[in-house]
Amino acid sequence: MLQYARPLQRLLNALERLPGIGPKNAQRLAFHLLRADEAEVQEFAAALSDLKARIRPCTQCFNYSEGDLCPICADPRREAAAICVVEEASDVMALERSGEYHGLYHVLGGRLSPLSGVGHDEINLDALLERVRGGEVTEVILATSPTVEGDATALEIARLVEQMVAAGELASAPKLTRIALGLPVGGDLDYADGLTLARAMRGRTVVEDG
Amino acid sequence: MLQYARPLQRLLNALERLPGIGPKNAQRLAFHLLRADEAEVQEFAAALSDLKARIRPCTQCFNYSEGDLCPICADPRREAAAICVVEEASDVMALERSGEYHGLYHVLGGRLSPLSGVGHDEINLDALLERVRGGEVTEVILATSPTVEGDATALEIARLVEQMVAAGELASAPKLTRIALGLPVGGDLDYADGLTLARAMRGRTVVEDG
Repeated sequence: MLQYARPLQRLLNALERLPGIGPKNAQRLAFHLLRADEAEVQEFAAALSDLKARIRPCTQCFNYSEGDLCPICADPRREAAAICVVEEASDVMALERSGEYHGLYHVLGGRLSPLSGVGHDEINLDALLERVRGGEVTEVILATSPTVEGDATALEIARLVEQMVAAGELASAPKLTRIALGLPVGGDLDYADGLTLARAMRGRTVVEDG
Repeated sequence: MLQYARPLQRLLNALERLPGIGPKNAQRLAFHLLRADEAEVQEFAAALSDLKARIRPCTQCFNYSEGDLCPICADPRREAAAICVVEEASDVMALERSGEYHGLYHVLGGRLSPLSGVGHDEINLDALLERVRGGEVTEVILATSPTVEGDATALEIARLVEQMVAAGELASAPKLTRIALGLPVGGDLDYADGLTLARAMRGRTVVEDG
């Protein structure tokens, strides 16, 4: 049993509770913080302490937000006619990093999973349909995860939107798209699993003349 | 430029300042903390906030401590006759993990480095000599790092202790030892550098009859 000074042990316990931080890593971080500027450590503590109190879901897309609208929904330069539907707020950040998309998002906060008791009311589905019903939306990009449940969630959203179109609830039918599946860039064909390869084959595109 | 809610961006900045935590890792940790219990996050914040205020150097060995004496110096079960001299408090923890040593420590808080302006007065050297002069010490283990400066620091400490012995300041001469250098356990001979191998050869020990 190692004998740490109690305040140090307390920080180590907090650090080791973080995902992917083992005892050795926690110690390295704790010793760094012990040597760091007091101001830096206090800023870290304040950032943590304020985090939950000052973060809430965006009232429009359920992304993490400080105010009513998240920075993306509040940005007039984003294309408001496109909604990219994702499972979690962290997916928004992953897509933002790609720099490829300039529309808005909708964070479901999960995916349909009847076996785990996650139905329509457990995720932000009604709010999505309400946004589509709003009228301005020309494309709904279904970017739920490429898993059985993620696929099922995407299909269910597509079905609900088509239902609204069939019922004449929408002025015009938005385009429904699913993000492409295939080999990761830089990935090795050899290491790809069969399902991914099958999807990559099925989703193959015509090579355009340069 | 990613658009994060400000309280989230603030936490990301604090996390990315930590050693070995890149942007992606910081994001993973931040999203974990956003989903974690409020109590867990507040405990983490409090541990950070209290850290510096409640940690100070042990008055005897300069290890991190909450009270006057660190948990090791305060433990009556430790052998008070042995002092293991290390450069940093993190070295104490590394040695404690080995479970091999049951004496006390002395944290120098650095190593002699004339080129960087670190002389006798910049590290906790006088306090070490004072402890040796105290009389009860029968062994001083020099566990400074196996680098040019660490070796020089160890030699200088040995020289100063021998000087005290020669001056008749000590009732009996403590044994001066240096931690062994050699191949790391589980290390591959093939991958060891020449210096390490040379030290391993020089420090070879007689195989005892089982």
